[in-house]
Amino acid sequence: MKIGIIGLGLIGGSLGLDLRSQGHQILGISPQEATCKIALSKGIADQASTKFELLKAAEVIIICTPIAAIASTIQQLTPYLNPETIITDVGSTKQLIVESCSQLWDNFVGGHPMAGTTESGIEAAQENLFTGAAYVFTPTDTTKPETVEKLKAIALDLNAIPYVCDAQIHDRAVSWISHLPVMVSASLIKACLQEEPDTLQLAQQLDSSGFRDTSRVGAGNPELGIMMAKYNQQELRRSLVQYRDNLDQVITLIEQENWDNLAQILQTNQEARPKFLNG
Amino acid sequence: MKIGIIGLGLIGGSLGLDLRSQGHQILGISPQEATCKIALSKGIADQASTKFELLKAAEVIIICTPIAAIASTIQQLTPYLNPETIITDVGSTKQLIVESCSQLWDNFVGGHPMAGTTESGIEAAQENLFTGAAYVFTPTDTTKPETVEKLKAIALDLNAIPYVCDAQIHDRAVSWISHLPVMVSASLIKACLQEEPDTLQLAQQLDSSGFRDTSRVGAGNPELGIMMAKYNQQELRRSLVQYRDNLDQVITLIEQENWDNLAQILQTNQEARPKFLNG
Repeated sequence: MKIGIIGLGLIGGSLGLDLRSQGHQILGISPQEATCKIALSKGIADQASTKFELLKAAEVIIICTPIAAIASTIQQLTPYLNPETIITDVGSTKQLIVESCSQLWDNFVGGHPMAGTTESGIEAAQENLFTGAAYVFTPTDTTKPETVEKLKAIALDLNAIPYVCDAQIHDRAVSWISHLPVMVSASLIKACLQEEPDTLQLAQQLDSSGFRDTSRVGAGNPELGIMMAKYNQQELRRSLVQYRDNLDQVITLIEQENWDNLAQILQTNQEARPKFLNG
Repeated sequence: MKIGIIGLGLIGGSLGLDLRSQGHQILGISPQEATCKIALSKGIADQASTKFELLKAAEVIIICTPIAAIASTIQQLTPYLNPETIITDVGSTKQLIVESCSQLWDNFVGGHPMAGTTESGIEAAQENLFTGAAYVFTPTDTTKPETVEKLKAIALDLNAIPYVCDAQIHDRAVSWISHLPVMVSASLIKACLQEEPDTLQLAQQLDSSGFRDTSRVGAGNPELGIMMAKYNQQELRRSLVQYRDNLDQVITLIEQENWDNLAQILQTNQEARPKFLNG
């Protein structure tokens, strides 16, 4: 299949490597000449260009730009395409993107391959990045079934596990397991930092694997955190409010010295957590 | 030095192994004959017994029982001791323990070696468990300086890093970095589990390293979680309330779409977190 990839960073570059190795012909687009050259030399793309014209013959185009650039990219791109071309994206939230992009292109289907590393850029592109990862697609009522099948086949070529669901369900699920943890974790570090200097210094010196793990995602890339909050504001707020209710219950149990009920919660958690870990 | 160790599980056993290899003579006590035999065969102790009488000649006694048994152990033990004997413990909270045990024995000093694994029991005992770990001592106003020096020397023999502070400061610091994270993490899993079945199932399938890390300590041993809450109730409640205030601020910023201030928090976190990681 001729597959266009716009944006040749960590995700776009890694998609190119694996899809090309599966026999697909990859047409790569980057605004930078230098990146196009690297894409060719690393085997990420068969052809690469700074111009959208290259994508005329593409059956499927995967937009791998930052979320904020997806809609404007489609607007600049579509004059070159025939109406059968399928456009998908790799943004980590879906509802707002699908709402705006579906209006720009009938054959748009939201996509979210759930893989990544802490690095970025074409030099970070790697083989097998998507192996075993979930790849979610969020078609609308008017999406043709064969379009979804074509995208699922691409996910399978990446050794990813395709899921198909409503964009709102996607955003709700990723809020629980990805965006809410960032804000829960960020609030932990923020609260610690308000402690008196002597106690704070001791806390910092003691080191603790519990703090280490629970604080990790709250100290990640600030731009990514803001992007989640901006593009998934409604679902993130919903899960945060529900989280706060549960936190309040835990505080109340501790104030009441209701150790039996607190133990019941911890017991339920211990049993439930393995269901969240497929890796 | 003749060092007594009461309770030959993961911590007591590991203390015995390393202190013995440093040339100390280790007198081990366990209520079980079988454990005493294992202690001798594994090189954890030079002598081992089910009877406290063995500890008559000990200069320092380290109580490694569960927190709830520390005070009663001291009561049974002291008839055999001369008043110069130093008693310390390894409990993960200090204020309540020090309050009760100081009344039972003048020469009691609270201790907390901050190391462990998820395993327990004498078979889990291992060498070098305390290497690089913090070992906190919490003397009172009446503790003799030479007593503290003797305990610090033991910590250094374990290749641990000794810290000396007030019991309340200890409990406050461990609440921030160890006990609060458990409740923050537990509330996250608890809140997720209330989601509608379809969305919950998708969330579970998607897997996410963010959820994986942030949920780890909230799904740990329920008994340990309850122990923290019971024995550090006051400081845990204080840090939880301060945490909730910070969470509320984050929720408000998201509701107000105040991305600049939210980005500032995430930026501060990113810069601050490495100071908590000494390992």
